[in-house]
Amino acid sequence: MCFEPLDLNYKEKVRSSFSRQKFMHYIGAKLVEIRPGYCEIHIPYKSELCQQHAFFHAGVIGTVADNTGGYAAFTLMPADSSILTVEYKLNLIAPGDGKLLIARGQVIKSRHTLTICRSEVFVVKNGDERLCATSLMTLIALVGKPDKPK
Amino acid sequence: MCFEPLDLNYKEKVRSSFSRQKFMHYIGAKLVEIRPGYCEIHIPYKSELCQQHAFFHAGVIGTVADNTGGYAAFTLMPADSSILTVEYKLNLIAPGDGKLLIARGQVIKSRHTLTICRSEVFVVKNGDERLCATSLMTLIALVGKPDKPK
Amino acid sequence: MCFEPLDLNYKEKVRSSFSRQKFMHYIGAKLVEIRPGYCEIHIPYKSELCQQHAFFHAGVIGTVADNTGGYAAFTLMPADSSILTVEYKLNLIAPGDGKLLIARGQVIKSRHTLTICRSEVFVVKNGDERLCATSLMTLIALVGKPDKPK
Amino acid sequence: MCFEPLDLNYKEKVRSSFSRQKFMHYIGAKLVEIRPGYCEIHIPYKSELCQQHAFFHAGVIGTVADNTGGYAAFTLMPADSSILTVEYKLNLIAPGDGKLLIARGQVIKSRHTLTICRSEVFVVKNGDERLCATSLMTLIALVGKPDKPK
Repeated sequence: MCFEPLDLNYKEKVRSSFSRQKFMHYIGAKLVEIRPGYCEIHIPYKSELCQQHAFFHAGVIGTVADNTGGYAAFTLMPADSSILTVEYKLNLIAPGDGKLLIARGQVIKSRHTLTICRSEVFVVKNGDERLCATSLMTLIALVGKPDKPK
Repeated sequence: MCFEPLDLNYKEKVRSSFSRQKFMHYIGAKLVEIRPGYCEIHIPYKSELCQQHAFFHAGVIGTVADNTGGYAAFTLMPADSSILTVEYKLNLIAPGDGKLLIARGQVIKSRHTLTICRSEVFVVKNGDERLCATSLMTLIALVGKPDKPK
Repeated sequence: MCFEPLDLNYKEKVRSSFSRQKFMHYIGAKLVEIRPGYCEIHIPYKSELCQQHAFFHAGVIGTVADNTGGYAAFTLMPADSSILTVEYKLNLIAPGDGKLLIARGQVIKSRHTLTICRSEVFVVKNGDERLCATSLMTLIALVGKPDKPK
Repeated sequence: MCFEPLDLNYKEKVRSSFSRQKFMHYIGAKLVEIRPGYCEIHIPYKSELCQQHAFFHAGVIGTVADNTGGYAAFTLMPADSSILTVEYKLNLIAPGDGKLLIARGQVIKSRHTLTICRSEVFVVKNGDERLCATSLMTLIALVGKPDKPK
């Protein structure tokens, strides 16, 4: 899929928004790649992110799935807009057993108001990526309400 | 809805499991109430949990929705079982603007293998509760694999 | 939950739209009740609606869940609007074993653009209602594009 | 993705089950392709399948999305099993405006008990396929309960 961004400054817009999300910083998330309709975020392992079996907690997996799909959608929105997740559905497919989470969000359909994305989360162990979760989500553009620092 | 727990020790089982989830501790979650088929978790505000507008991050809201529904389901499972979230869908309804998140999970249908739950997340501001998110989820019991400390 | 309709003619608007849906007629659906934020649709059993075990087919259950939630939302929309389902999630809880399906849709949150609904489908056998499926859905109002006969 | 069927007779098993679903016959659905982990179903246009604007009704789109994903999963299940849809989420992406629906279901992950599938529905108009809906779903194998004629 190939998309044309409405805002040529889309990378900076996404980076700026991401950098102001304290929770993403708190869980150690790193914004690794931004392309039109695509976003990739990584989260290295730390014990604070775990559930009772020392795997990545489902909450961390859901957070990064949602965030990655959201920023994939945001790349295609106008400069003066902000973005909200309307809803998402997440299927957990394998335990988060590994040293790194990689989330890849991809726009499926972008329209004026709503955007549909898919996001997949992989867990990396001993150099192997394994599909850990997959997500299907709906996002809404709030046009005329820029996502900017106060 | 009224449910009979299979494991009379269900409260201790849930508390023990929750206490071993480092991520729930990291985000300041408190297990407030456990009844057969029901669980309530609170998360007080701290700035590390926020998105760019200083509201609770959707990742925190999703985490607590999933966890609350999961433990509601876990109250009804046999003593020697552990639990996994198969999938959930979350609708974000209002911004997480307030000083406390309250998540309430309720079992809709409990069967031998799968349990269906609903979970609602409220945000409290100036003493008023406002519905912030609602979730519908599927959980699976892993019977014969107790969720216990290693 | 109590809602004020924007369009006092909401019942007629819903009935008119429903009557133009040939598929709902084809499957024998009957619009039974309309209130602000609420809609109820019934489908009597006929063998053409069944899956391989002579129960109501999941497709019929999903259709009526979606349609009921959609018309519940439509009751609260302005007179000059039409409605689209953005997405829904359906959990199938019990087999559609009975002589009547009853679907009840309820608005959870109604906003200018998006509406969130829950819809439950019951199957009636020997006079007893049993929860057969539950659904959580998102709908969008297309304001300025009335849903009317061509 | 490449899958090995446990039941070498998987095509006949799927065809036999499909042929006993009266509702799929009632809506004119045709089982077009079956491969391990994959299923494709077509539905030609007829006016009885439509909503108020003479497009394919969302209920038909949801039905074929669910059914296609279900039979994709069923190809990988043991010979003595039947299958149930646990839940699905469907995003409606474009109106069902055309003369043919094509649904393609693909297994994402197949395990002993649960299978996760994706299903996409396309609408064909003037020879062009357009993505109309996408779905993410969970199915369960009932092992030891064959899906067979009574």
